[in-house]
Amino acid sequence: MNQPSLLHQVRVVLLQTSHPGNLGAVARAMKVMGLLDLVLVEPKCAIDDEARARASGAVDVLNNARICASLEEALADTVLAAACTSRRRDLPHPAFTPRQAAPELLRMVQSGPVAVVFGSETFGLSNEQLMKCRWLLNIPTNPEYASLNLGAAVQVLAYELRCTLEDAVLPLPEFQLASHAAQESLLSEMEKVLVEIDFLDPANPKRLMPRLRRFFAKAGLEDEEVAIWRGILNAARGGSRRKQGSGG
Amino acid sequence: MNQPSLLHQVRVVLLQTSHPGNLGAVARAMKVMGLLDLVLVEPKCAIDDEARARASGAVDVLNNARICASLEEALADTVLAAACTSRRRDLPHPAFTPRQAAPELLRMVQSGPVAVVFGSETFGLSNEQLMKCRWLLNIPTNPEYASLNLGAAVQVLAYELRCTLEDAVLPLPEFQLASHAAQESLLSEMEKVLVEIDFLDPANPKRLMPRLRRFFAKAGLEDEEVAIWRGILNAARGGSRRKQGSGG
Repeated sequence: MNQPSLLHQVRVVLLQTSHPGNLGAVARAMKVMGLLDLVLVEPKCAIDDEARARASGAVDVLNNARICASLEEALADTVLAAACTSRRRDLPHPAFTPRQAAPELLRMVQSGPVAVVFGSETFGLSNEQLMKCRWLLNIPTNPEYASLNLGAAVQVLAYELRCTLEDAVLPLPEFQLASHAAQESLLSEMEKVLVEIDFLDPANPKRLMPRLRRFFAKAGLEDEEVAIWRGILNAARGGSRRKQGSGG
Repeated sequence: MNQPSLLHQVRVVLLQTSHPGNLGAVARAMKVMGLLDLVLVEPKCAIDDEARARASGAVDVLNNARICASLEEALADTVLAAACTSRRRDLPHPAFTPRQAAPELLRMVQSGPVAVVFGSETFGLSNEQLMKCRWLLNIPTNPEYASLNLGAAVQVLAYELRCTLEDAVLPLPEFQLASHAAQESLLSEMEKVLVEIDFLDPANPKRLMPRLRRFFAKAGLEDEEVAIWRGILNAARGGSRRKQGSGG
């Protein structure tokens, strides 16, 4: 894959955006840095004249934007979802600045699409939405006024990706990263097995699954590793089933 | 001079701006990165409601903006003026990317104000205006669509200055990494359990343990995670032991 087309694999996912002007600003911010893949999840506004005016020469990015009914749908084929947020301390995710993350994101897009996820202008990202993302991206800001506009946040991210691409010779990834759907499915299977083997109490789950999510996010699951873990889960469940089957 | 106040010495100079929304976007882009000094040279529009709406919480930067009749006046007390432009080849100035220029700009502001100069939305900077500036700043863009919005260009510059100041490093969350001994002990325990639950055949181990070692190495095991995995292994083994205990 040639260098600029790596940027075509970076997906910008906007959740519940309410201002058409921001849609246009995001499209322009993307295209000016070479990004093209825009996905709108439950948009709260239409792509109207204001959006098109702000998009300027990037109206094609707006017109090609895909609209999804859920974040899950927007992320299904991605190999990594990184949430852009100013939150940090209360979350278990690995967190990076755009500068720290950009080389790794560009390495990962060689396995498949990478999503950068932005919350609504008013409410940001909910905990539930954040938990579907594996990384956090924290853009450095003025602690006394950290309210970055949506288009400006996308601009910073896109700029950082382009600069990194222009500066770097990127090593190819050794292994195929697992898709979002495959990762979610593994974690959901793991949760079931942990209940079956009496390690996870569904009535009192505490922070176990968020901690495991964080652990798997740090590792960057690959396809072959998904297969290994599925095998281990089946073996663990086998023990547990046989135990129950024998009336133990 | 303390670190954040270095950013107060960076002046953003806008020439003949024609869209009030852009004035607001620039003010917000500045303040969110800690820049405060905005100068408007011959503005072609007023600071109106649209400007204030786009400025959001940075209305103070707009209200404090100084209006100058000439670029000369705006630059008089500065120690450096750098023009942000996509032009380059036909000009004699030293040209830098924002990333290249930022450390030097922050060194210079310790001597006095440094100006970053932006032309009008329609015409950019004239030759005469460019000749009053000593450096050029070229923001990397998509060669097929290089039309960066004014607010977005200021955002990129201000971001680059702030990152450089912060040395691009946010402290990572404070989790204690597991010691080598703790990691080795966990992996050895895991190997035993995988044998007990009939997933790993000691007579034909293949590459399973090296693959798991690699997986855990990628994740960067922390102390608390070692405890979680030990719990999971004990639960998995419990199932297996009870199975054997019941003669299964």
